[in-house]
Amino acid sequence: MKTRFTELMGIEHPIMMGGMMWVGRAELAAAVSQAGALGTITALTQPTPEDLLVEIARTKDMTDKPFAVNLTILPKMGGAPYEEYRRAIIEGGVAIVETAGNKPQEHIDDLRANGIKVIHKCTAVRHAVSAQRMGVDAISIDGFECAGHPGEDDIPGLVLIPACVDKVEIPVIASGGFADGRGLVAALALGAEGINMGTRFCATREAAIHDNCKRALVDNDERATNLIFRNLHNTARVARTPLSDRVVEILARPDAKFEDVAELVRGVNGRELLETGNMDAGLFWGGQVQGLIHDVPGAGELVATIMQDTETIIAERLARLAA
Amino acid sequence: MKTRFTELMGIEHPIMMGGMMWVGRAELAAAVSQAGALGTITALTQPTPEDLLVEIARTKDMTDKPFAVNLTILPKMGGAPYEEYRRAIIEGGVAIVETAGNKPQEHIDDLRANGIKVIHKCTAVRHAVSAQRMGVDAISIDGFECAGHPGEDDIPGLVLIPACVDKVEIPVIASGGFADGRGLVAALALGAEGINMGTRFCATREAAIHDNCKRALVDNDERATNLIFRNLHNTARVARTPLSDRVVEILARPDAKFEDVAELVRGVNGRELLETGNMDAGLFWGGQVQGLIHDVPGAGELVATIMQDTETIIAERLARLAA
Repeated sequence: MKTRFTELMGIEHPIMMGGMMWVGRAELAAAVSQAGALGTITALTQPTPEDLLVEIARTKDMTDKPFAVNLTILPKMGGAPYEEYRRAIIEGGVAIVETAGNKPQEHIDDLRANGIKVIHKCTAVRHAVSAQRMGVDAISIDGFECAGHPGEDDIPGLVLIPACVDKVEIPVIASGGFADGRGLVAALALGAEGINMGTRFCATREAAIHDNCKRALVDNDERATNLIFRNLHNTARVARTPLSDRVVEILARPDAKFEDVAELVRGVNGRELLETGNMDAGLFWGGQVQGLIHDVPGAGELVATIMQDTETIIAERLARLAA
Repeated sequence: MKTRFTELMGIEHPIMMGGMMWVGRAELAAAVSQAGALGTITALTQPTPEDLLVEIARTKDMTDKPFAVNLTILPKMGGAPYEEYRRAIIEGGVAIVETAGNKPQEHIDDLRANGIKVIHKCTAVRHAVSAQRMGVDAISIDGFECAGHPGEDDIPGLVLIPACVDKVEIPVIASGGFADGRGLVAALALGAEGINMGTRFCATREAAIHDNCKRALVDNDERATNLIFRNLHNTARVARTPLSDRVVEILARPDAKFEDVAELVRGVNGRELLETGNMDAGLFWGGQVQGLIHDVPGAGELVATIMQDTETIIAERLARLAA
């Protein structure tokens, strides 16, 4: 399927894998890209910029097709040597970068000066307008449904996607709440040029996370998420577990502070939990889209199924309704 | 456009006007039905069951096409002689009823025994499953985006609609966040058989509310809503006004009670505010879809535009993408 997004990125299918800490590694990214969608490795999952260079090379060994690197800029959360990671991305010959977070201007300028296409992920129309002004090539607009950081405005995709498309000229892809062909067609109808999926790609065979986490994504329904850190104005949506329920309870107390739960969460979407499957070892991202996830296919098979369903919905269901 | 919903209800277009206190009157309902969609008069807007009979007769004078009556059952909120209103609906020869609220079984049984089609509006998949078991003919599933009562689960339509369609066999229409053809196509793609719109129909010429309210719906963006009564487990989404901001602030205090704001809100979606346009006289419903409302057309013109855009999106944009 050709959309403004697929044309711009040189990919076959309008589906992108979102940047995900600890999950965005070469094997999954390459499987997604090899299937014709856009796989993404996450820069800060690699301990050093040198390791990122190696991961980029590993991805290139597994696929000749375009893939992206996610660079999430959160200086307040401890930060990282973003400039050095950016240099590794450029040196590694990456064609596409997904930026997210605060004050991306210098990164956008340098990446684009080096011929790299930049997709900026954000959660509000005004941030999309601002990113377009900064010169990015595409927007990934992330609705309230999403896992991870939905922002503080709580605008779901049904409204956020068309509101965003009405205000920017560059291609917009839709993020948050997508898992299947029904969602892709909905996003295209709302004016998006494709979708970005995170949680759904976590429940694939190639995702390097423990089976306990994948099983939780399959077993959970759409209500099994928790919003935490709302009172700290840094809202995060995580899968509901006994531990995340307890964190919600603690943070509901008047004057609750991050320190009250710091030990419990041990870094949200923490490595220990994802690797060991020990649900007491931290929290993990999980979107409401869990309610639409019922299996753990290969990533390439997932992309193929979504595209097949998309074609069927357009060519059969919708064409018949409009006839 | 023929869908399972239009076929069941005997209407031309898969668009329903939602039940709305003080707004659901004969003029607007008849204009919507006359345009081929499904207009709705709201039973409890009429002070007595006898007045409802008159309103039903007035609507029939204005259109020969099917229209619905909304019966919202909220005994905890003071209640009303629901059984008498139900008898007026039956006696008035109404063909379609939209129920909402608690414990609708006896109403559903009696309405259906009298040959009336029942659409039950609810905000959760488990409630849709339960309503299907109670024997209703269709579900209107209402997402987090909506004005009025979104429930306490906070699941937006992008996830809620397909999750609901997967669990019930009867036709589902999608409610909350819809204002245009883009939304209708998205709903159809997600598996719904039509859409229900409330806020969008408030910003039409025939809506009997003050121009100040219509202007607010046009001027407001998608962020201009407030959720109130969350701590009372009776969440309501209202348009953001200085008064609703103040209510939010008061209710954010520890141990806040309804009594603390009762005088300020004077009944949410209160008659005085809607009739006089005095924004200090109460709060009024407004959904996030305000961000997609830019004009105040006639209700029939709105329906025609949505259907035209829907056909164009399916026959041109989506067909071209899938080609």
